[in-house]
Amino acid sequence: MTALLESYAAGKWFRASDEGAPLLDAATGEEVARISSTGLDLAAMTGHARQVGGPAVRRLTFHERAGLLKALAKHLSTCKDELYALSTRTGATRRDSMVDIDGGIGTLFSYASKGTRELPNDTIVLDGGLEQLGRGGTFVGQHLYTSRPGVAVQINAFNFPVWGMLEKLAPAFLAGMPTIVKPASQTAYLTELAVRRIVESGILPEGALQLLSGSAGGLLDELRVQDTVAFTGSAHTAGMLRNHVNVLHGGVQLGVEADSLNCSVLGPDVTAEDPEFDLFVKSLVSEMTVKAGQKCTAIRRAIVPEAIADQVVEATRARLAKVAVGNPADPEVRMGALASLGQRDEVRKAVQALRGSAEIVYGDPDHVELVDADAERGAFLSPVLLRANPGAVEPHDVEPFGPVSTVLTYSTLDEAVALAARGKGSLVGSLVTHDPDVARTVTLGLAPWHGRLLVLDRDDAGESTGHGSPLPMLVHGGPGRAGGGEELGGVRGVLHHMQRTAVQGSPDMVTAITGRWTTGSQRRVDDVHPFRKSLAELRVGDTISSASRTVTLEDIAHFAEFTGDTFYAHTDEEAARANPLFGGIVAHGYLVVSLAAGLFVEPNPGPVLANFGVDNLRFLTPVKAGDEIAVTLTVKQITPRTSADYGEVRWDAVVTNAAGEPVATYDVLTLVAKTWPPA
Amino acid sequence: MTALLESYAAGKWFRASDEGAPLLDAATGEEVARISSTGLDLAAMTGHARQVGGPAVRRLTFHERAGLLKALAKHLSTCKDELYALSTRTGATRRDSMVDIDGGIGTLFSYASKGTRELPNDTIVLDGGLEQLGRGGTFVGQHLYTSRPGVAVQINAFNFPVWGMLEKLAPAFLAGMPTIVKPASQTAYLTELAVRRIVESGILPEGALQLLSGSAGGLLDELRVQDTVAFTGSAHTAGMLRNHVNVLHGGVQLGVEADSLNCSVLGPDVTAEDPEFDLFVKSLVSEMTVKAGQKCTAIRRAIVPEAIADQVVEATRARLAKVAVGNPADPEVRMGALASLGQRDEVRKAVQALRGSAEIVYGDPDHVELVDADAERGAFLSPVLLRANPGAVEPHDVEPFGPVSTVLTYSTLDEAVALAARGKGSLVGSLVTHDPDVARTVTLGLAPWHGRLLVLDRDDAGESTGHGSPLPMLVHGGPGRAGGGEELGGVRGVLHHMQRTAVQGSPDMVTAITGRWTTGSQRRVDDVHPFRKSLAELRVGDTISSASRTVTLEDIAHFAEFTGDTFYAHTDEEAARANPLFGGIVAHGYLVVSLAAGLFVEPNPGPVLANFGVDNLRFLTPVKAGDEIAVTLTVKQITPRTSADYGEVRWDAVVTNAAGEPVATYDVLTLVAKTWPPA
Repeated sequence: MTALLESYAAGKWFRASDEGAPLLDAATGEEVARISSTGLDLAAMTGHARQVGGPAVRRLTFHERAGLLKALAKHLSTCKDELYALSTRTGATRRDSMVDIDGGIGTLFSYASKGTRELPNDTIVLDGGLEQLGRGGTFVGQHLYTSRPGVAVQINAFNFPVWGMLEKLAPAFLAGMPTIVKPASQTAYLTELAVRRIVESGILPEGALQLLSGSAGGLLDELRVQDTVAFTGSAHTAGMLRNHVNVLHGGVQLGVEADSLNCSVLGPDVTAEDPEFDLFVKSLVSEMTVKAGQKCTAIRRAIVPEAIADQVVEATRARLAKVAVGNPADPEVRMGALASLGQRDEVRKAVQALRGSAEIVYGDPDHVELVDADAERGAFLSPVLLRANPGAVEPHDVEPFGPVSTVLTYSTLDEAVALAARGKGSLVGSLVTHDPDVARTVTLGLAPWHGRLLVLDRDDAGESTGHGSPLPMLVHGGPGRAGGGEELGGVRGVLHHMQRTAVQGSPDMVTAITGRWTTGSQRRVDDVHPFRKSLAELRVGDTISSASRTVTLEDIAHFAEFTGDTFYAHTDEEAARANPLFGGIVAHGYLVVSLAAGLFVEPNPGPVLANFGVDNLRFLTPVKAGDEIAVTLTVKQITPRTSADYGEVRWDAVVTNAAGEPVATYDVLTLVAKTWPPA
Repeated sequence: MTALLESYAAGKWFRASDEGAPLLDAATGEEVARISSTGLDLAAMTGHARQVGGPAVRRLTFHERAGLLKALAKHLSTCKDELYALSTRTGATRRDSMVDIDGGIGTLFSYASKGTRELPNDTIVLDGGLEQLGRGGTFVGQHLYTSRPGVAVQINAFNFPVWGMLEKLAPAFLAGMPTIVKPASQTAYLTELAVRRIVESGILPEGALQLLSGSAGGLLDELRVQDTVAFTGSAHTAGMLRNHVNVLHGGVQLGVEADSLNCSVLGPDVTAEDPEFDLFVKSLVSEMTVKAGQKCTAIRRAIVPEAIADQVVEATRARLAKVAVGNPADPEVRMGALASLGQRDEVRKAVQALRGSAEIVYGDPDHVELVDADAERGAFLSPVLLRANPGAVEPHDVEPFGPVSTVLTYSTLDEAVALAARGKGSLVGSLVTHDPDVARTVTLGLAPWHGRLLVLDRDDAGESTGHGSPLPMLVHGGPGRAGGGEELGGVRGVLHHMQRTAVQGSPDMVTAITGRWTTGSQRRVDDVHPFRKSLAELRVGDTISSASRTVTLEDIAHFAEFTGDTFYAHTDEEAARANPLFGGIVAHGYLVVSLAAGLFVEPNPGPVLANFGVDNLRFLTPVKAGDEIAVTLTVKQITPRTSADYGEVRWDAVVTNAAGEPVATYDVLTLVAKTWPPA
């Protein structure tokens, strides 16, 4: 008997008390491992996540969490060989395993990078700008995101045992939630190996990741308002989860990413001689055969112009004929086995259903030539291409979760969009065209029905990651049949795990709560110019109120001549008077901000190292010759960089005229040393 | 017999074939109207919305839709008198009606303004920045929102018959969706009057708003993937809706805003002498009595420090004693009737349940002194204040939907947060404190459990809109018991009705699809300087590539002296060499952008009227003496203003050095005349 997979629960590896069920090699039928969760204390797992893991993660800032994800990605990169070796037993070729293993590790790297660059070095995230709720400025609103003090449960499909876990772990961890992963049993041995390496590394805080190997019966009963469930799998199981009392009435947040009947549309502009024709066929064959078509993003419906359909079918057949099927470990083999004999039965049944309104034009669901493999023991299946009869219904309803696609035809773009929509919501669609008008019409027509859309042509084909590949920076999920959920999408995927709250209060209170200086709240002026303060000394609210300077007509004329910006509004009184906004010569906006810098700067070497940018600069009132201007600069936000001896300081800048009117407002971005003199 | 309310369905007013059920005046028990939907063709209504209303709304840009909302708000403002008069019959005092009627009209105005200022003058919305998906820059990703081609169904509660409709209509309409409103029968006569005035005005396109008066049985059966349901009401009904097959399996998007056990926390810093003490008591009494406590945002749990609880109870009793209950039309009356005798029975039952672990300290649920009203016929109820026993359970579970609150006590801030969380998710909470540390601790502790949090103190009290008032610019909704939905929140509420899609393609294709110039896509240079082109002539992609200019040490020294910006990195070679980022004298960032303006400007009067701002300016590479710089300026986005003879043009600016490295990137914002010379 092979080894029994263990669960990692409440800080310990747990071994079930019974023998467990066997898990078979997809290609050879040999037993790989056994699985059981009998005796596992699910309440202890959720309790451990809530009481140990969650608090430990939430003590860290987003940047610290991102740093751990990066370390984890590096660590898993060193474990790739054994992960690849074991992955073969799931039926995956080396190319398939790359999608799962390297794809998963890449997702960690991507989230590590996004977490550092796009989230603050803090534990809350501000959402949108300040809302003025009263005319006097004493009552304001600010939306913010906080971490849910719950547990993130992930229930994964069998097809991506590594990526599936890591793509859900990364955003949940960044969001401050501990994860319990429940892999599909069929390929759980690969997830178990990855979790084992993660736990051994000690990189994540204890309780941040637990593993449930085996049946998850009863897990949802343990969940509460602050918990989330992210499910990937069939629409059927999704429906059962939606029906659980804790989802219906208990406030558990359920996200679903379900298989869908994704389409790829060939544009009417494409002829058989165009590079886009080959791209379409290549993409279709690739989506049919990678992971033996067991991808929820695979192309199930190829929607092509009626006039070119025969040629598409012919070219696809020719290309499919070159796909070697068999032992996934054999480098010649392009397509391995389905995950199990049971899965193969399901796909055969689906093909049978499709034949109700489509004819098979390539492949035999009951027979396939194999390279170095045993058709009796392995779950092998030939790629099968069908061509739909006019008005076919089944291709829009039946999902064969294997190497099977159906070709449908259209006459007009409206018809193509309508056919695509009959999938009732998909994870992804693609369009192969080189015509920008076709691209706009079809993309905007398909968009409400899709979570992701790929427009493929000769220009992006070289770098395109393909129809079927979710990317960490783009949302993954889709409306309707695809489950209605959203995963990934960079920071979007993090915020899905957090609670958005509108906070109302006085500016001072909003500053105190958010840790970011809020317009209208107190400014602190002391004897030390804030440019003389290191990051360690600087506080949000520290302010310099500058002396004033009169802007003369000579200044404006000189600036025009010096910079070459001789725009008539700065140089020609008569023409400037005719300008509907100015009514006379005005100072250049760039002159105003340049003079403002002269007013607030502290010239000597000090902790402020550089001005690296300006945000949201708005010129509100024209500055005319003779106007006196002054500037007020206030520390708005302080962001220490984890991996440098300086950090970013965002300053609120307001330039005012003698009447006190704001003439320009903007944020000045500087780099400031953590200590001064440098440590 | 009174008049039978009609439905506005498929472009016609529909009258049911039967007599309908009577709707009674809340205060007098007289019949106000009758209601029935018998014979109404629901499929025709959804079909009309999808085929007539939706396309008509989606033909308009966001700015055009916003303009119609503003016109509608103005029109309804002229109908206020009759709305107020009819509102009295729901049991509402004038103050109560203001919340409903003026609150609803204000929400329209707010969305009109947000739609113009924060959405593009277009039919799609871009979400986030461009994602580079390949190193070569030929494959990029852009998230965008498109309108769902479905219908927005709103199922409203009886307490805000006008606001409830308008606060859901405004964001749905802006999002491009037609609405079917189904008001609660009890007060549907007021909604019917408002819809009648809207339809008569002809302001909204036909099909954009339909009214279902009476039972909605079967409406959900007509809904599909692209449809949304926004429900406000009880958690019980919400559960039934979640269980509908079209929600479970059909992809219908359901948003729920349910009554919740909202709390108000009094900070431990507050003594009976502080202004915050009075603010707390005043807020509590106001929330108990406005709309006779029939607000899903009302304070059900007053969480106060143990030490001050007696004083809070005493002060609240004293204030409640001054509340005159009775005929809502009487100007002396502070609190009117509950919506119906049935509602009063429900509240009495809830009070009875609360008495299991709390004692009544003010009011008698079975008796109330009335001003100018008949206790037998009207649904009047005394305000009831309870004080919970230690460890009480019921106050966290039982919701009396009337003028009833319970006082609970705490010792530590952790305990206060834990008590609040026992509500299992609320729409809103408030905190009354003048201590910033208390504000931060409690607000961030409560945030994951709340959609909105108010921090009330002496500084914002004058302008505060109060605990119970949702505002159009802030999200309304909450996790868990509150339903897990989100409404309002300005543009957030619009985007909830739209589908987010990640679009991948070449930069040229992304430009074609979004209508916004994308980094990496073609730039068009022709003989005419783009500053000579009016909005009518200008195209996205129009570019000027400037001549170059050498930045000399004299330029830098002169700029320093002229502007006063004598920062050492621009003036002192030795000190600048010691700077870790520069290693020698560098040009001022402001000098670089000023010179760039001199390079791209077209000096003569023309369609470009003004530069009104700069966004996202980043200095990427230091410019040293002797460096040659040039600038490329490309039209990125064109936004005509509906109510002016000019529009906004956003230009992509890249300043490069002789090596072709970008030294600065930013967006330049200009106002450009629609025609030139001006029409």
